[in-house]
Amino acid sequence: MSVYKLTYLNVPALAEPIRFLLSYLEIDFEDIRYESEEWPTVKTKIPLPFGKIPVLEIDGKMLNQSTAICRYLSKKAGLAGSDEWESLLIDITVDNFNDFRQTFRTYILDVTAKESKPEKYKTFINEIIPFYMNRFENTVGENNGYFVNGKLSWADIYFVAIIDFFSYVGKVDLLEDRPNLQALKKKILEIPQIKSWITKRPAFSYEVTSDN
Amino acid sequence: MSVYKLTYLNVPALAEPIRFLLSYLEIDFEDIRYESEEWPTVKTKIPLPFGKIPVLEIDGKMLNQSTAICRYLSKKAGLAGSDEWESLLIDITVDNFNDFRQTFRTYILDVTAKESKPEKYKTFINEIIPFYMNRFENTVGENNGYFVNGKLSWADIYFVAIIDFFSYVGKVDLLEDRPNLQALKKKILEIPQIKSWITKRPAFSYEVTSDN
Repeated sequence: MSVYKLTYLNVPALAEPIRFLLSYLEIDFEDIRYESEEWPTVKTKIPLPFGKIPVLEIDGKMLNQSTAICRYLSKKAGLAGSDEWESLLIDITVDNFNDFRQTFRTYILDVTAKESKPEKYKTFINEIIPFYMNRFENTVGENNGYFVNGKLSWADIYFVAIIDFFSYVGKVDLLEDRPNLQALKKKILEIPQIKSWITKRPAFSYEVTSDN
Repeated sequence: MSVYKLTYLNVPALAEPIRFLLSYLEIDFEDIRYESEEWPTVKTKIPLPFGKIPVLEIDGKMLNQSTAICRYLSKKAGLAGSDEWESLLIDITVDNFNDFRQTFRTYILDVTAKESKPEKYKTFINEIIPFYMNRFENTVGENNGYFVNGKLSWADIYFVAIIDFFSYVGKVDLLEDRPNLQALKKKILEIPQIKSWITKRPAFSYEVTSDN
């Protein structure tokens, strides 16, 4: 049996979709977590392939890139599309989330960590967030409650695993007034393996700084 | 037969891996190109799924996300890995390029488009570029002249299609003193369908501004 070790900070963020998918697959994994303060020191002692986390070690092989890892696990779970076209639509959806994440991150760092920028924050709240979130909401509305082709895929799990942390960091409820996404979240969190993961996952606290 | 229309600026950049792969597959495509100056106006008239280009239209369906599109085309070309593990390694490699691209872009915009920042430029040249490029060089050295498992994959084509534009924009030869990557580039450009594409692709000129 393969041995899985996941290394990340003690936050959901980029590691949480991996944790959700490993849980979905009922794969035991070592969930190694560091606090933000200790990470700069610990980092120098771990042979990270490209200097970044999360990394998932499978049988001693150190893998970076959380999206690629999620796609790999999703294939094992039968959640990566039933043909190449469907896989394409799922991949596009996940990369759209990642674009939102990048944009979100840039704004959050600007808004909270540097000098106060009320104009930027207004753009963030009134333009960036609705631009992406309304598209996500509509897509789920048009696809029978899921992101792609009216059935569960890793795009759904990825989104639900990561979105609450965005809300937390941005101090804004991204699912407010978006009933399709709320219903999707509810469905995903009711999957027994995910539900069980949520019950046992550790608590965290997190402060945004320009270093993380 | 499916109809393919690719929309982008008149530059290689993110569209070029798609153009390389369509050419490799000998798929005819309409190569729609706009100059940077006209794009802001044109943009409002095209129903872009997430406001960004490139987009590839296949039989009327408008697709964004260049990496996802490349993966889809690569499966058709038999270049996406012979098993799930190999596909994972290819996906990780491509996402590492994309991380480099993001970092590169941030630095280039900082360095050329805003006030002069000599310290940042020094970090960019002396730290960021070697950090990524030396890893790429070594990986190809360790894998018999390719990025993954000693054989041609879409990671190789993606890299070669995009890297010259990075060098052009950064005004630095990223392959200098990196013989493994130089040899890889040579091999890819000698593939008959790619060679034929290179011969016929249009010339371009490009100025970096903070808008693009």
